[in-house]
Amino acid sequence: MEASQQGAEGETATQGSKPVVCFLGPVTSYTHQAAMQTFSPDRYELLPVVTIKDVFETTQSGRAAYGVVPFENSTNGSVVFTLDHFADREGRYGDLSVCGEAYLDVHHCLLGRLPNAAAADGAGPESSSPPAGPKGQPLASLAHVQRIYSHPQAWGQCTRFMGAHLRGIETIDVSSTSRAAELAATDASGTSAAISSALAGEANGLGFLARDIEDRDDNTTRFFVLRKLGADADAAGDDAGDAWWRRPAGRKTKSLASFTVPHTAPGALAGVLECFRQGGLNLTSINSRPSLIEPFQYVFFVEFEGHRLEDPDGRVRDVLEGVGRVAQSWRWLGSWVNMRV
Amino acid sequence: MEASQQGAEGETATQGSKPVVCFLGPVTSYTHQAAMQTFSPDRYELLPVVTIKDVFETTQSGRAAYGVVPFENSTNGSVVFTLDHFADREGRYGDLSVCGEAYLDVHHCLLGRLPNAAAADGAGPESSSPPAGPKGQPLASLAHVQRIYSHPQAWGQCTRFMGAHLRGIETIDVSSTSRAAELAATDASGTSAAISSALAGEANGLGFLARDIEDRDDNTTRFFVLRKLGADADAAGDDAGDAWWRRPAGRKTKSLASFTVPHTAPGALAGVLECFRQGGLNLTSINSRPSLIEPFQYVFFVEFEGHRLEDPDGRVRDVLEGVGRVAQSWRWLGSWVNMRV
Repeated sequence: MEASQQGAEGETATQGSKPVVCFLGPVTSYTHQAAMQTFSPDRYELLPVVTIKDVFETTQSGRAAYGVVPFENSTNGSVVFTLDHFADREGRYGDLSVCGEAYLDVHHCLLGRLPNAAAADGAGPESSSPPAGPKGQPLASLAHVQRIYSHPQAWGQCTRFMGAHLRGIETIDVSSTSRAAELAATDASGTSAAISSALAGEANGLGFLARDIEDRDDNTTRFFVLRKLGADADAAGDDAGDAWWRRPAGRKTKSLASFTVPHTAPGALAGVLECFRQGGLNLTSINSRPSLIEPFQYVFFVEFEGHRLEDPDGRVRDVLEGVGRVAQSWRWLGSWVNMRV
Repeated sequence: MEASQQGAEGETATQGSKPVVCFLGPVTSYTHQAAMQTFSPDRYELLPVVTIKDVFETTQSGRAAYGVVPFENSTNGSVVFTLDHFADREGRYGDLSVCGEAYLDVHHCLLGRLPNAAAADGAGPESSSPPAGPKGQPLASLAHVQRIYSHPQAWGQCTRFMGAHLRGIETIDVSSTSRAAELAATDASGTSAAISSALAGEANGLGFLARDIEDRDDNTTRFFVLRKLGADADAAGDDAGDAWWRRPAGRKTKSLASFTVPHTAPGALAGVLECFRQGGLNLTSINSRPSLIEPFQYVFFVEFEGHRLEDPDGRVRDVLEGVGRVAQSWRWLGSWVNMRV
């Protein structure tokens, strides 16, 4: 396939000669970091998009070969916006499936103007990298901080630090922790801070007022890599034939499926789950979201061990056939290599 | 028991001679409306508290005989803060259980200063009740509206109206739709509006710029009523012996239980659910939240048909005994009469 420039009309899944990987932006977001961990910028063109919906749409349309979205955080739980797009109630993403996962340890920093810099002219980057110093403790006076920007999920992950050092300070919800860092950086008064990643602090020239302020040191977010089902990655310019998601053999694998049950037969929920038990496929997570067909009817999501495309003894096939007999509707949403050791 | 005044030291579950029912406030919140639907203000003292945590704490401590919390919305799904308190990871609410449920149809209004009133002196209530007029359409010009306050969940329930009539207008997240109405009412410029309930509009003297602006006309929120397990409601001054949650016999009932599974035996999840299928107890919903013990281990919540305290054939007892053999830990969280017809 000819390499092409991305544009309104002639968009393809390649940009230059590299396959495009879109991710929930902006640049320096945690999803960006997860995407970089999976897709080397040497071989892939990484493209930030604004919303989780944009990741699904850009990948479904073929404008990107892959898409990266957050799926769950070990402290805050499932990302319901991602689940709602997998529910695909309007049938917009029928070709997408999960082909990989990535885990990222989440470390939050308090970023802003350092007190000594606030007294100086304030120009230029504060610091090029997180300083050494105690984790979870202020590295400087916080007396000048009058407001803090962050994503709503971050407050719930930093309750101890906030309670100990920033009680009563105004907090402002914004769409991402990266955006929070941008906003803190553009406050000329130097009295705004952000809870964001070290990378976002460096990118925005912010000073490190504290690092690792999260309550739990095992705070981890899991991301999914999406691709178009049946799309020939090579045709999309992806010559990364050694990509890990093409070589599940001999590794632990997982799959995701969604299903609904007839609301006149609520016992069907246990019946569907029993298919997995009988087939010996362990369930590793279960989620539900409103079906939006009838109030208090649900779309269920199950993750289970096994790979639909590498299934020599047919176990996954047999279980999914059983699900098809009990569920009202169901859909396989992908299989991938387990990246959690 | 002597009636007593509520106070810092001598607090009890009665105020005057009425049992206290606390609810997620402020006054005029949707939870307040659900509480009034269940507990007549003639016979109960309704007490607004600030957070879902406050409802759990106030009921556990005995300062209220009952507590009312939102559990799920038919459009937005589960209320994770409520699930997290039921998970009770620190063992603070060991005596609480669900004794009832309530459903409330959620109708959102756009509330603010009416355009003609904005030209007048602006004093006094705009309107004492929602006007007749087309549902989901502006009842007046919205040209003067510069910002809108609401709870984050409300935006997701009013996307069509917002897209058609308020595109590009600043939206500000606040802690409740009732608080949104209060903020709109205190803006002397008259350029702020709120998405909130008709009741909150009336209570704050706001004009009705539009009514029933929700995307779905079946938008319903379900609430749970909590009480202290084993508490003698009569001793708490509750002489409402005919309360519906005392008379489950002959009515459809539901129960809630939580459980965890050994993380070395993920097959145990299906094993626990199989107990319900074998016992013939239909599962009506399932949820999970992070256990916060190990990343990506979960507390599961199942709702099922049946009542632990009205269980003549012992089915609920037998199933829960089976759960106890398979789960790592489990807890019965209450049984109540199904109020959904």
